[in-house]
Amino acid sequence: MDYDLLPGQRLTRGVSRHLESLGFACVPEFVPTRGLRVDIAAIGRSGEIWVVECKSCRADFMADHKWDGYLPWCDRFFWAVDADFPQELLPDGTGLILADAWDAEILREGPESRLAPARRKAVTLKLARTAAERLRRLEDAAF
Amino acid sequence: MDYDLLPGQRLTRGVSRHLESLGFACVPEFVPTRGLRVDIAAIGRSGEIWVVECKSCRADFMADHKWDGYLPWCDRFFWAVDADFPQELLPDGTGLILADAWDAEILREGPESRLAPARRKAVTLKLARTAAERLRRLEDAAF
Repeated sequence: MDYDLLPGQRLTRGVSRHLESLGFACVPEFVPTRGLRVDIAAIGRSGEIWVVECKSCRADFMADHKWDGYLPWCDRFFWAVDADFPQELLPDGTGLILADAWDAEILREGPESRLAPARRKAVTLKLARTAAERLRRLEDAAF
Repeated sequence: MDYDLLPGQRLTRGVSRHLESLGFACVPEFVPTRGLRVDIAAIGRSGEIWVVECKSCRADFMADHKWDGYLPWCDRFFWAVDADFPQELLPDGTGLILADAWDAEILREGPESRLAPARRKAVTLKLARTAAERLRRLEDAAF
């Protein structure tokens, strides 16, 4: 059934699995603020927040004109790409994760830029509410 | 299919739907701290945290010897019961929600006892991680 996944979803799954092995909990397609949607927001045991953008190909990357808008919403930012992606396209000083549909590996950590407490609080609250609402929607429908 | 739900699950669903209509996001069977499991933790738009214990019958209520242990983990605490429950059993000064499987109504709000900031932060983080992990488990399995 993996073959039904879109390329971006395959990366999202592999990255999520890997980040979970590091103790993070992952929320896909998270909207930290109006007009901005990140592929994965991950929150660690101590509340650290990472954002990962999954890019399945050159065109997918070139179409993203707002990636630097993600930086103010996380402690660390990463790109996730597959083995065929031309990595030289990616900006210097950003994190890099190599992924497939089953797992992933962090090749490079970008610099840490710690969120201010008020923003961390707001993002954490929104993560809690987003994940809980999605879960409840699934569970309510399943009954 | 509603008839497959256990009595407690029916109350949980009705209460969750109602609290969602008030702007809360609900996480069932939440463990705020080791050894303590609450039926519903709900987190509001401003981060307020409510806990609801669903009691399907007298025996269910009488078996719960630790309900006052829930109070330090929320801003407000409620019991949720159905129309047949003997409400006079419930302690004074606690919130009360009347529920069925489809909806609920708040009959009485208990006193507010605001969480200290550090505890609110910890509970919010745990809600985010719990809901995200459960959601990812469902989504990963669905692929």
